Amino acid sequence: MSIREIRQSGSHPYVFGRYHEPVARVAPGETVAIYTEDAFEGRITGPDTLPSQVLGKYLNPQTGPIYVEGAEPGDTLVVDIIDVEPTRDWAVSCLVPYFGGLTSTTMTRTLQDPLPELVWIYRRQPDGTWRYGDRFAVEPRPFMGTIGTAPDLEALSALTPHMHGGNMDCPEVTKGNAVHLPVNVPGAYFSTGDCHVAQGEGEACGVALEISGKVTVRFDLIKNHPIQWPRIVSPTEIMTVGSARPLEDAGRIALGEMVDWLQAEHGYDKWDAYQVVSQTAKLSIANLVDTYYTVVAKIDRRYTKA
Amino acid sequence: MSIREIRQSGSHPYVFGRYHEPVARVAPGETVAIYTEDAFEGRITGPDTLPSQVLGKYLNPQTGPIYVEGAEPGDTLVVDIIDVEPTRDWAVSCLVPYFGGLTSTTMTRTLQDPLPELVWIYRRQPDGTWRYGDRFAVEPRPFMGTIGTAPDLEALSALTPHMHGGNMDCPEVTKGNAVHLPVNVPGAYFSTGDCHVAQGEGEACGVALEISGKVTVRFDLIKNHPIQWPRIVSPTEIMTVGSARPLEDAGRIALGEMVDWLQAEHGYDKWDAYQVVSQTAKLSIANLVDTYYTVVAKIDRRYTKA
Amino acid sequence: MSIREIRQSGSHPYVFGRYHEPVARVAPGETVAIYTEDAFEGRITGPDTLPSQVLGKYLNPQTGPIYVEGAEPGDTLVVDIIDVEPTRDWAVSCLVPYFGGLTSTTMTRTLQDPLPELVWIYRRQPDGTWRYGDRFAVEPRPFMGTIGTAPDLEALSALTPHMHGGNMDCPEVTKGNAVHLPVNVPGAYFSTGDCHVAQGEGEACGVALEISGKVTVRFDLIKNHPIQWPRIVSPTEIMTVGSARPLEDAGRIALGEMVDWLQAEHGYDKWDAYQVVSQTAKLSIANLVDTYYTVVAKIDRRYTKA
Amino acid sequence: MSIREIRQSGSHPYVFGRYHEPVARVAPGETVAIYTEDAFEGRITGPDTLPSQVLGKYLNPQTGPIYVEGAEPGDTLVVDIIDVEPTRDWAVSCLVPYFGGLTSTTMTRTLQDPLPELVWIYRRQPDGTWRYGDRFAVEPRPFMGTIGTAPDLEALSALTPHMHGGNMDCPEVTKGNAVHLPVNVPGAYFSTGDCHVAQGEGEACGVALEISGKVTVRFDLIKNHPIQWPRIVSPTEIMTVGSARPLEDAGRIALGEMVDWLQAEHGYDKWDAYQVVSQTAKLSIANLVDTYYTVVAKIDRRYTKA
Repeated sequence: MSIREIRQSGSHPYVFGRYHEPVARVAPGETVAIYTEDAFEGRITGPDTLPSQVLGKYLNPQTGPIYVEGAEPGDTLVVDIIDVEPTRDWAVSCLVPYFGGLTSTTMTRTLQDPLPELVWIYRRQPDGTWRYGDRFAVEPRPFMGTIGTAPDLEALSALTPHMHGGNMDCPEVTKGNAVHLPVNVPGAYFSTGDCHVAQGEGEACGVALEISGKVTVRFDLIKNHPIQWPRIVSPTEIMTVGSARPLEDAGRIALGEMVDWLQAEHGYDKWDAYQVVSQTAKLSIANLVDTYYTVVAKIDRRYTKA
Repeated sequence: MSIREIRQSGSHPYVFGRYHEPVARVAPGETVAIYTEDAFEGRITGPDTLPSQVLGKYLNPQTGPIYVEGAEPGDTLVVDIIDVEPTRDWAVSCLVPYFGGLTSTTMTRTLQDPLPELVWIYRRQPDGTWRYGDRFAVEPRPFMGTIGTAPDLEALSALTPHMHGGNMDCPEVTKGNAVHLPVNVPGAYFSTGDCHVAQGEGEACGVALEISGKVTVRFDLIKNHPIQWPRIVSPTEIMTVGSARPLEDAGRIALGEMVDWLQAEHGYDKWDAYQVVSQTAKLSIANLVDTYYTVVAKIDRRYTKA
Repeated sequence: MSIREIRQSGSHPYVFGRYHEPVARVAPGETVAIYTEDAFEGRITGPDTLPSQVLGKYLNPQTGPIYVEGAEPGDTLVVDIIDVEPTRDWAVSCLVPYFGGLTSTTMTRTLQDPLPELVWIYRRQPDGTWRYGDRFAVEPRPFMGTIGTAPDLEALSALTPHMHGGNMDCPEVTKGNAVHLPVNVPGAYFSTGDCHVAQGEGEACGVALEISGKVTVRFDLIKNHPIQWPRIVSPTEIMTVGSARPLEDAGRIALGEMVDWLQAEHGYDKWDAYQVVSQTAKLSIANLVDTYYTVVAKIDRRYTKA
Repeated sequence: MSIREIRQSGSHPYVFGRYHEPVARVAPGETVAIYTEDAFEGRITGPDTLPSQVLGKYLNPQTGPIYVEGAEPGDTLVVDIIDVEPTRDWAVSCLVPYFGGLTSTTMTRTLQDPLPELVWIYRRQPDGTWRYGDRFAVEPRPFMGTIGTAPDLEALSALTPHMHGGNMDCPEVTKGNAVHLPVNVPGAYFSTGDCHVAQGEGEACGVALEISGKVTVRFDLIKNHPIQWPRIVSPTEIMTVGSARPLEDAGRIALGEMVDWLQAEHGYDKWDAYQVVSQTAKLSIANLVDTYYTVVAKIDRRYTKA
């Protein structure tokens, strides 16, 4: 059996929204392989291709929108991630002027000079690690930096993570896990892109090990099951994802969503749910660099039903 | 050989500062057992002892200050945590009006009514877990919520985590790990308290499984080695801890301290250190509820020297 | 000479973006009168029309987009506000659940109950004030809560203020002042709405004295004059407007834009510009309630050229 | 009649707290003239005295503590400001590395280089303005940058504004206004310092026109009248002051305190008080640079009793 492959026809959208024509239609239950460009559309290839010289105005080209048959507002779109594979043997990171977690930015503004523009090229090694020259090697943990549906009215930049998903830069969006996304428009208008071979939590410099990728996913729907924010289910944990500024608001959203979820579907009353979250949650920062920051709350499945 | 035991004589301080007389003196290399009260000085014992009725004005009684012989400003105080043991078989959590992560507070102020005051008593089970009635049981992971030295001029509330350590509510302050603290005044003026049998990351409701405890630690000094913020070393990771508001500032501090540490002591130049942090760090939220929020950055020791 | 009147044909857009067809075209130098709906599209008319019962999904209906002939990306659109007039003799404020500055919200999330839903109807008095029953009367200072152009790629909610203008809720957008907006798409795609008879700085409860209005404006272009954020010029002051979260980021943007403006067009070097801002600026909070918060920085024109 | 003069005997405290011995005692109703050092203790005198070379470890030397006879916890200390006079004819501003609103700081940390160290000397002119060379002149509006009482347990840096007052950098702390401060310890332990000839709202670069000063104030007590945060009363307005991070929390405190004040003492119920604040408040940023940011809310006295 062969899996259908989806490649972008025409230019890549740089927003999550309902205003682009779908590039493909899928049925619930269908598994597809989606090909994605890297965050720079492949333009940064070495130390001499400085971001300020080669990049266009937009980052994070998406593959999509993909129309999911039968998806209606109020449904949950379930995306089982079967595999995330790099489609080349090198990855790129770099410092982009006034972008990142340890620099002032266009939003956290100062009068200081930017950090230097630097490019790091990592190459896949025979042992499976991705190495920067002879300096250090990183274990691969490939995932999709952007994954989301269309907001109902807005068209949001592919640099933005929010209620629809988007640029969460969340390492847990990886092989073996299922991402649950709200459906806001008929057909859901799913998009993904921005694959990373590896990334630290927080994505400190704003740029992970960026690669082009092949993403194998299976789509499904939970009908009449509205959710407000993305959720992730792994074999061992359930997770909620909040994206906001300041970062504490992202944390509050992730924690609050988890309290609601435990209360609605896992047999706790509101206050016991708050206790379980208070005493057992993991709470990590997925990104500290994007237009909204992202926090993930996790509860061990020993505390949940099913 | 018996270990010297330190119990508070007289009332407990509720600040970290140089203005209280030391209750004990220890020598570098010495191991002691410190007895600590719970965060409520034992006043909440059941569902009928509501926080608003039984609590005094201050929380987090400390045991200390402990004078470390030979400690001078510019040294690092190393506290090896040999054991953290509950000294009773029950622990308490509760909701305190206008305190916690999913309520408005005196600092994040609204006109809404507070959450209900509720008390949870957890009891140690034969299987080692700590159980709330017949509802759920939590694995013990005991640690000290507060640990710190005196700031040089300020006397800071025992509810505050900052450069001196303090109320970090950081689950990594646990058996087997070493906490590094800046020495700001002669003798360091070390204090600790607020033991937790368990706590989720973020300490969502603001109150962990609070216990009285016996804390066995070994003190040592790294002379002429100034550090700005607390650090933690585990067998597998090195960690930096930042405490600030908004939460992103705590994250930036933790990440920035790690870049500095990798550059100063682990053989990286500044920008490669930024890369290692960007691509490999873990970044978790220790508390989202205290006067400053706390973030921990972790790097696997495969990326460090020694 | 009569002024051309622009009324919305068809439904009102609830976003700022390029994806709606223009409802009118204007030439640079032209003066028009634009009719606007109130923020609730007129649905809240008294204490029995509770927001949660009568409101649809979206707020802040816009009149527009209006295509400005000759406007190109990189130009500045100048909107001289000649008059802002209520078109009815009553205004409405209310408390909307989980919306406002002194309540938790969907983004600053807590587990608390919402504030009560309440409606205040203010009526125009013979003395010109707008009075709530026999309790208190407010001086009218009418202005447009939303005013903006289309972002280049995004379609942003009419509840959002950002680089394009939008829902700044800035009382200085008033008669006698000129608002400068960036042009991001050919024709600028200008929209306005959400008139307020009066509003305190910060718009504490999130809802001003909301009215339908007639807005008389004159459009003009400064060709090849890119600006990043909205600016306002009054007879006595120049102003920059930043919208972001957390609020300090909005403040930094407003201050940084002012430094840039003084340096680029008013004869200061960068550091003297920073001094003038540091020693003479006014810095007020326009809104503390919207999806981004808004800060206005003002410099007296005694310190500027022309 | 001569007014008693208070000059610091011995070294100046650099904290607000109960741990220093009072330098003077005053009676309620008494008027005194207090002499204050500038924020740098006079060490920066020209462009060659760079902050990093001449400054010690602490800033903002205070004159005090002053013991107010009869002041008890739960009272309000009223400080009528009769005059604020520079005691020299030059003032200094400067850029201090990693301090200010448009630079990264030790708390909002980045890897960028600091801004250049620069010093501006302003000289008093015959026309009353204070001029920097031939470049620009600033109107004097002298006020005290720091004013406060002792917290009950803590000793807080003189760089910190909080519930006790402190380093609010609030231009409204000026001649003709009365500052209300909470009394937390017997005698109140009042201190003041850090006079500014002028300062813009926000104090963008972190350093105003710093001067040594003579401050004439009259002390009074409102017995058994606890307040949580500082308040200011001018001939035309009542004001509340909140200091916190992020800046929106400072704004929420100022607004919430005003709602409480209008409800407790000015004849409004809670929700009408929220309306009056929402529709008529002024809301300005006093400082965007200190350890906590400060926001001032103002209500016209037409809306208040007495």
